[in-house]
Amino acid sequence: MDERFARQIEFSNTLDSLKTILRRNLIMDGSRRENSAEHSWHMSVMAMFLMEYAPDGVDQLHVMKMMLIHDVVEIDADDTFCYDTKGYEDKAEREQAAADRIFGLLPEDQQREMRALWDEFEACETLDSRFANSLDRFQVLFQNMQTQGGTWRIYDIPKSKVLGRMGQIQDGAPRLWPVVLEMLDEAVEQGFLVADC
Amino acid sequence: MDERFARQIEFSNTLDSLKTILRRNLIMDGSRRENSAEHSWHMSVMAMFLMEYAPDGVDQLHVMKMMLIHDVVEIDADDTFCYDTKGYEDKAEREQAAADRIFGLLPEDQQREMRALWDEFEACETLDSRFANSLDRFQVLFQNMQTQGGTWRIYDIPKSKVLGRMGQIQDGAPRLWPVVLEMLDEAVEQGFLVADC
Repeated sequence: MDERFARQIEFSNTLDSLKTILRRNLIMDGSRRENSAEHSWHMSVMAMFLMEYAPDGVDQLHVMKMMLIHDVVEIDADDTFCYDTKGYEDKAEREQAAADRIFGLLPEDQQREMRALWDEFEACETLDSRFANSLDRFQVLFQNMQTQGGTWRIYDIPKSKVLGRMGQIQDGAPRLWPVVLEMLDEAVEQGFLVADC
Repeated sequence: MDERFARQIEFSNTLDSLKTILRRNLIMDGSRRENSAEHSWHMSVMAMFLMEYAPDGVDQLHVMKMMLIHDVVEIDADDTFCYDTKGYEDKAEREQAAADRIFGLLPEDQQREMRALWDEFEACETLDSRFANSLDRFQVLFQNMQTQGGTWRIYDIPKSKVLGRMGQIQDGAPRLWPVVLEMLDEAVEQGFLVADC
């Protein structure tokens, strides 16, 4: 086994730990918290059958690659709950260090490629990354709907905060925005979400 | 929400159940069995940094799509352990029925696309599907190496059977075959695998 291959396998083995990183939200049968590997899979499959809602010019392969690796830094930095203001204070710093170490396991050309994908996802400026970030939000929406409010109820998150978080979808996947609004109205109606706006 | 979108969301919500389908093999920290959603994610990421070992002409996006959905039928048909001869007797029948129902949730054009991808993966005749099937085998190899033999030891699988199962890699990803042989020799040396050939 040459050095290049050994590095790729060490990276692959390290990735396995993403299966132990728990997110706050529950899987849809409500039995337990979802882990970040499962979430990354679900989002990536969504990019197979929701591409028609992407803005013109979005590159499916590029989006999928970003989504497959977007949470890998959590192996070192752990998942930061999206409504955790304190956790967000040093989130960027923790995740940069994690990206250095984890992508650094790969051969140099592949480090650069993976890091560029992750940086792009995080910066959320390009058409592709804005769509990818939108699917990230969108997956959670349906998970919370299927678990009677899920994290919204468990952590008392009011509608205004959810709308703020979901706002990414209005920007990155505007064709999905009317559905988001419809779902949030339904969530309020069903008592899954407190209407404060 | 129009009918097309409602069908896509029902499909997406149904996919969530793949997170509850347990495979026989353990995640690499040995703490529990892996589920099929995690496995599908891991395989799909592998297609990002192991493409250089694919035969010339393999289409990365096509491979990724196949890998992302290759186990979805297990939601109804459950995972069949690859060395379970009895389970394999009706595996095809169970999985065909599952594919009919699960892909059937999607709008017709998308059913056809997903079903064609799954049929292609299962038939394992095209260059892309032979490579995708090879990565499916390859992921398990490293999982068993990292868990002191994993399913090989738990279920007393001898080297000849593992070689038979891994043979797919010799066909679909011949550049990876020398590493497979090297790993299996090491597995025998470490006492993870019984040498019967």
